[in-house]
Amino acid sequence: MCHTVAVTERTDHTLRGSWTSTTGELPPHALRWLRGRTGLADVRTPPRAPVVPESALSGAAHAALDAVVGPGYVRVDRDSRLGRAGGLSYVDLLRQRGDGDLAVPDAVVLPASPGQVVEVLKTCVEHDVAVVPFGGGTSVVGGVNALRGDKAAVIALDLNRLDELVSVDPVSRLAVLQAGLPAPQAERALAAHGLTIGHVPQSYERATVGGFAATRSAGQASSGYGRFEDVVEGVRLATPVGEWRLGGAPASAAGPDLKQLVVGSEGAFGVITEVTLRVRPRPEVERYEGFVVDGWARGSAVVRGLAQRRVLADVTRLSDVDETGVSLAMTGGWKINALKAYLKARGVRRPCLLILGWHGASEAEVKRKRAETLRGLKLVSLGTALGEAWRHGRFNGPRQRDALMEVGVCVETLETATHWSKVSELRTAVREALVDALGECVVMCHISHAYETGASLYFTALAARDVADPIGQWQVAKAAASEAITGLGTISHHHAVGADHVPYLEAEIGALGVDVLAAVKRTLDPTGVLNPGKLIPTGLASPGDR
Amino acid sequence: MCHTVAVTERTDHTLRGSWTSTTGELPPHALRWLRGRTGLADVRTPPRAPVVPESALSGAAHAALDAVVGPGYVRVDRDSRLGRAGGLSYVDLLRQRGDGDLAVPDAVVLPASPGQVVEVLKTCVEHDVAVVPFGGGTSVVGGVNALRGDKAAVIALDLNRLDELVSVDPVSRLAVLQAGLPAPQAERALAAHGLTIGHVPQSYERATVGGFAATRSAGQASSGYGRFEDVVEGVRLATPVGEWRLGGAPASAAGPDLKQLVVGSEGAFGVITEVTLRVRPRPEVERYEGFVVDGWARGSAVVRGLAQRRVLADVTRLSDVDETGVSLAMTGGWKINALKAYLKARGVRRPCLLILGWHGASEAEVKRKRAETLRGLKLVSLGTALGEAWRHGRFNGPRQRDALMEVGVCVETLETATHWSKVSELRTAVREALVDALGECVVMCHISHAYETGASLYFTALAARDVADPIGQWQVAKAAASEAITGLGTISHHHAVGADHVPYLEAEIGALGVDVLAAVKRTLDPTGVLNPGKLIPTGLASPGDR
Repeated sequence: MCHTVAVTERTDHTLRGSWTSTTGELPPHALRWLRGRTGLADVRTPPRAPVVPESALSGAAHAALDAVVGPGYVRVDRDSRLGRAGGLSYVDLLRQRGDGDLAVPDAVVLPASPGQVVEVLKTCVEHDVAVVPFGGGTSVVGGVNALRGDKAAVIALDLNRLDELVSVDPVSRLAVLQAGLPAPQAERALAAHGLTIGHVPQSYERATVGGFAATRSAGQASSGYGRFEDVVEGVRLATPVGEWRLGGAPASAAGPDLKQLVVGSEGAFGVITEVTLRVRPRPEVERYEGFVVDGWARGSAVVRGLAQRRVLADVTRLSDVDETGVSLAMTGGWKINALKAYLKARGVRRPCLLILGWHGASEAEVKRKRAETLRGLKLVSLGTALGEAWRHGRFNGPRQRDALMEVGVCVETLETATHWSKVSELRTAVREALVDALGECVVMCHISHAYETGASLYFTALAARDVADPIGQWQVAKAAASEAITGLGTISHHHAVGADHVPYLEAEIGALGVDVLAAVKRTLDPTGVLNPGKLIPTGLASPGDR
Repeated sequence: MCHTVAVTERTDHTLRGSWTSTTGELPPHALRWLRGRTGLADVRTPPRAPVVPESALSGAAHAALDAVVGPGYVRVDRDSRLGRAGGLSYVDLLRQRGDGDLAVPDAVVLPASPGQVVEVLKTCVEHDVAVVPFGGGTSVVGGVNALRGDKAAVIALDLNRLDELVSVDPVSRLAVLQAGLPAPQAERALAAHGLTIGHVPQSYERATVGGFAATRSAGQASSGYGRFEDVVEGVRLATPVGEWRLGGAPASAAGPDLKQLVVGSEGAFGVITEVTLRVRPRPEVERYEGFVVDGWARGSAVVRGLAQRRVLADVTRLSDVDETGVSLAMTGGWKINALKAYLKARGVRRPCLLILGWHGASEAEVKRKRAETLRGLKLVSLGTALGEAWRHGRFNGPRQRDALMEVGVCVETLETATHWSKVSELRTAVREALVDALGECVVMCHISHAYETGASLYFTALAARDVADPIGQWQVAKAAASEAITGLGTISHHHAVGADHVPYLEAEIGALGVDVLAAVKRTLDPTGVLNPGKLIPTGLASPGDR
């Protein structure tokens, strides 16, 4: 059995668990629970049609772009433009539902080759047009918002047509893929060679391999397969000043690792058109198992021990007490009272759910890996049923947030990472910031990724939407959380900088870090057409601004 | 038993095996063997005193530097300057022995703190003085040669006084160390906390932790502990425009990984004054074992299998047939004829020596790791005796090359890495280039580091020195090898760029890569005082040159 390809989540912010039925309606017990916890009123908040301004793309620019990509691949119709108007953050979705101002690209341009991407960029420089690279459009940090900066117009550069598996080197376990390949399609193409990337973030179904590289993505199985930057062995970058290729050795001391400057550049330095990825044999067996640990302190110590012994399961995920409570309350198929009694009998007062998942070539290998992980640990096992419930939960809820949004919930996630000695302090600080800002709310947290020296923390917040100012409500909470993170952890472990985290970047990388990014941008994108307002703090991307 | 700290090699180019007795003399059997293989004549080539020009440091600069670092820490005496005149490449050593022109710094400056390093750099900018950061001085690629570029003078910025273990975070397994700490001293300081970095390159005894970071070093146990860039979690960089600190999370998606721009910057962007390193518990048990595989193709397939199954031993090293022959011939304590008969009986016609070493907290852990590595493999084991011989060989020969140089041998190493599908092609190409250039010679090769997607190749060449033009002789051979590497692999897997690999960098990272490096340098080092002639192709480090 191999399930890697079967994941079907649509978005990076989809909540786990059985919030909704398969028809996308929120079940009554979930709604009751939410009302009890957040003061949610019994209202419907149906979407309104967003305002889509006329395209500002000049006729000359349109004609020049047409000449590059061919007739029919420069689109200015309302649906095409609206479909690339931002990503999938809560605020993006509010705007798509008619709240606030939606930034809509003036055109959608679909090049067919890496060479055409370079030509599109040069054409945009000539015609003073900003370029927002667009893959799956799953950014939850404003990374694909159609900001035009100081340019006359802005296009969404849709990489959808760059969808080829270019080559496979089975000896070196490398595959070259075009950037616009959605992850499931990439996995299907590699499956024909018995290979997998193994990269399964929540954005899996829609996100592209180029987007993973541009944002330093991490997947649910990244403890086993590595973060995406660990998987990228080579990149091909289209820039307004030409094409740049990097990679050609598994490791190198030939100066700084410039590949790591491209990975995470979020379309501000160029457009990734091709990636060379390390691939692995597809697992034949996957086993997911649920465990319960008593309390966050003990739970995080267990995960830290696994990471530092280097025996992490391929999937390792520890929920805090609040998230565990919600998971158990919302998991329909579970005999929740019996479970609570069982945990009480085992002396577990503050259950924290630990999901562990192992992939392997055989049952024997998975068994070996499991034994290695669990050696010397005394965990309360809930067996594979809960693990499988979690796995199936990953596939069930593509419209969970849509349903929540429909009934007036303010629902969003954010994430960070820090070293182990600060993990609990950081969790408390962010929790308190969110609760202070949102009032009556639910804040849940889990460790989504663990390392020898630290871990990521992934937060979900639920509150009754402030219908008078829904965007402002979340922006205040997000700012409070971001301030709490600053100085304690990174502003993003795997969601990237986008537009939303720009104000916090300098505190993390220093004024010199910002200067360096701006210098690199000036070198590769001298007129600043690439993704204005993203990644690099505003006003610093042009010469002489600092 | 823990041997990590006991390594005592002096240089990055020290040859393995029992070339010399402990007194530093080449034993008669080795000399006989060399004469038979290289046409080496019976000559002695004693060193001559190199020419040391007067210091060109102005009185004003001297006084200003004195004011920063304190009296006695700006040294212009002959011995101090000569002691920092270059690194330890064959050509460097020839120059130290009186061949060719030796680049001698005009002064040696020894700051006592990260803050003083920043002040020294600012002072050097004011007084038009180039700065060569100097740690252990073990560069074998010209990385610490005292080139002044277009500056009025050049100093060696010796980091020797920055030798503190600043702090240890045992929970996060992190240690902050000053850059000038020599590796053995760093290990001793960490041993008090039961911790180790586990970084043991051949330069171990003299090299500093800052130097490891500046050059993207890889150690003999890097399969187990990671390359140095994997170990660096944070850096503190002194630049002429101020101090830059990076690091604070185990992983991040907050834009490009700027730390990987500092790691490997070889003193061209700034001076690393502090590193935050991931540390691990010191191993209680180490086991080294020798195996023999029949032929290079089979041997490299075995190592590839271990890497791709992710069960590499902590030390994994595969010698080709030539290196194996030399190792066995030179290993005094071995009953070589009995061994040959044994191998013949086992059907091994073209023996390739495979050294595997495992580190662990207990005998049981080492046993487990060993079983995991060897599962399903049918290797001819030579037992731990040969493994231990290799390990002890690591400690025995600090003056091997000195002894070889003394008797007129041209002796040097070089290294590269590529993906598995090109490893054998690359080995053959470099071998042939060296043999074509050197004529009657010995060229040996081993895989020193293996990865899922490829491996490094480490070459050693021995020939009779051309006494009329010893430097030219090697430069021709090195150029031929470098040309052979270009397009097939990286110009350096762990020796760095220095001055020697500068001409080959653009072919590897592209013209845009060079432009980006130059842009970063202009941002951090606007007047170009830092390590001129290193890393970045000449003429591109100043604005407007491209």
